[in-house]
Amino acid sequence: MNEQVANKTDKQIRAEWIQYIEDLQNRICKGLEDMDGKASFREDKWTRPEGGGGKTRVIANGNVFEKGGVNTSVVYGDLTDIMRSQLKMEGSSWFACGLSLVLHPVNPYVPTVHCNYRMFELYDANGNLKDRWFGGGTDLTPYYLFEEDVQHFHGTYKSICDKFSVDFYPEFKKACDEYFVNWHRNQERRGLGGIFYDFQRPGAEKDVQFWMDFGKACGDGFLPAYLPIVEKRKRTSFGEREKTWQEIRRGRYTEFNLVHDRGTLFGLKTNGRIESILMSLPPTVRFEYDYHPEPGSAEDQLLQACLHPREWV
Amino acid sequence: MNEQVANKTDKQIRAEWIQYIEDLQNRICKGLEDMDGKASFREDKWTRPEGGGGKTRVIANGNVFEKGGVNTSVVYGDLTDIMRSQLKMEGSSWFACGLSLVLHPVNPYVPTVHCNYRMFELYDANGNLKDRWFGGGTDLTPYYLFEEDVQHFHGTYKSICDKFSVDFYPEFKKACDEYFVNWHRNQERRGLGGIFYDFQRPGAEKDVQFWMDFGKACGDGFLPAYLPIVEKRKRTSFGEREKTWQEIRRGRYTEFNLVHDRGTLFGLKTNGRIESILMSLPPTVRFEYDYHPEPGSAEDQLLQACLHPREWV
Repeated sequence: MNEQVANKTDKQIRAEWIQYIEDLQNRICKGLEDMDGKASFREDKWTRPEGGGGKTRVIANGNVFEKGGVNTSVVYGDLTDIMRSQLKMEGSSWFACGLSLVLHPVNPYVPTVHCNYRMFELYDANGNLKDRWFGGGTDLTPYYLFEEDVQHFHGTYKSICDKFSVDFYPEFKKACDEYFVNWHRNQERRGLGGIFYDFQRPGAEKDVQFWMDFGKACGDGFLPAYLPIVEKRKRTSFGEREKTWQEIRRGRYTEFNLVHDRGTLFGLKTNGRIESILMSLPPTVRFEYDYHPEPGSAEDQLLQACLHPREWV
Repeated sequence: MNEQVANKTDKQIRAEWIQYIEDLQNRICKGLEDMDGKASFREDKWTRPEGGGGKTRVIANGNVFEKGGVNTSVVYGDLTDIMRSQLKMEGSSWFACGLSLVLHPVNPYVPTVHCNYRMFELYDANGNLKDRWFGGGTDLTPYYLFEEDVQHFHGTYKSICDKFSVDFYPEFKKACDEYFVNWHRNQERRGLGGIFYDFQRPGAEKDVQFWMDFGKACGDGFLPAYLPIVEKRKRTSFGEREKTWQEIRRGRYTEFNLVHDRGTLFGLKTNGRIESILMSLPPTVRFEYDYHPEPGSAEDQLLQACLHPREWV
């Protein structure tokens, strides 16, 4: 395998990753439309004046999905002063390709989910590759706690990780718990985690093919990790209490994405397409002053799980 | 007047400002409760482990006000590393006292309003005053454009400013237009402005009494600037269309406060009381993908006024 990789040019590697990401977008959108049974994705193709573009696919007002997006982008350009100073990047130009999705279901018993898989490259003034890294992850944000659902979700990613390294799941699960944190809210987590990895640079042992294959395996894992949970919960009846709680938790989701999320920040600082970046924000949100669920209630059980991350598998 | 001021100790100046701020809070809450006719303010007194505390007063589910807060704080402490590095402050300890309010009305024809008046001081290791500045402002965020309302609001503050300096209104009106900007949204303003000033350091001509008196005059101007607009619009009938538009615009308000607002950032970085800081967020919010009001509609007229600030008086 290594020899084969050694023969792949940087151009071929980029092409392979781009092809995977665009194919994944098609497969995920198809799977979600089938699950929804009513709404379909609308595509907005966009280009970026500084280089590249993307395909933003959004779904809204479905049977299952109230709002969601499955976006891909293939973007590049010269390094800007902001990237150098605030993002600490060095080089002359950059390239990035990835898929990013967020789904906000109608039913508060169906979790919100987010995933993102990407490759980033930096080039010197002669156009030679200077640095390359992979990042990604998938994380679940339920509104009510069903332990079996969380176990299924984490279990799916543990199985995938274990095929690459038994160290990955513990490490990337912890990184996820430490990344999606509302630091200003007593370190409350956005949800119940999953896996998260970033700045994974190919080396002698874990080469570029290894990290591409790992990203592909995680990307392929999205539908089997998420759809069974949706299928199980989408018919659960709910009322105003559950919807209100969902909207309050969506407020925390909004706070994380706008205050802390590096991906959102990167998009805003690199003149990304605003509507595609902020597609992640929930459709309806509620901010209540000093709201605390009743201790011991189903709502409180979810909150406690967000405050105190635990092992699920 | 200057001789009198020269005789005021720093302690007396602080006491005078604190007394004014706390009295203003009482007067504003009374005026708003009378206007609402149903809901009353609930007070949460809080203390800050590092020094000082505040009185958070919130109103909710009223006839007129869906959510709002009128908060005061008198806080102090040692300068932290974050204040030195990120807020570029120098000295050994600091003191701040101010009032901050945000009101989110039920009726989309009644504007949201925000105001904030504050004094900030820095001390050296011997406890001697090293630096002191005043800041503040009041700004209006309507959902529908009634030119006469905006003219009344701006006119009230222009009259107040003119008593202190004819340069103030043009300067502080411009500063307001340049501060409350969603830079990531094509420089769309949060609302239709008002006045905003910051880092006003007392000098030989405009001494500490001058800036205290100016802050007091602006603070006293809040009720006469805002209440007549509420009185005029609070009975206007509205339906789902207007409420949806209000919630979409509240989304922009949320984006500004969480991504750009220095006050929110300061609170989050100085271990402020989170519930008091985020009290400013609207009660219900809607984030729709790539939403554009119909060109020429009432909603679009408001949007155009936010995109292209104009002179109101």
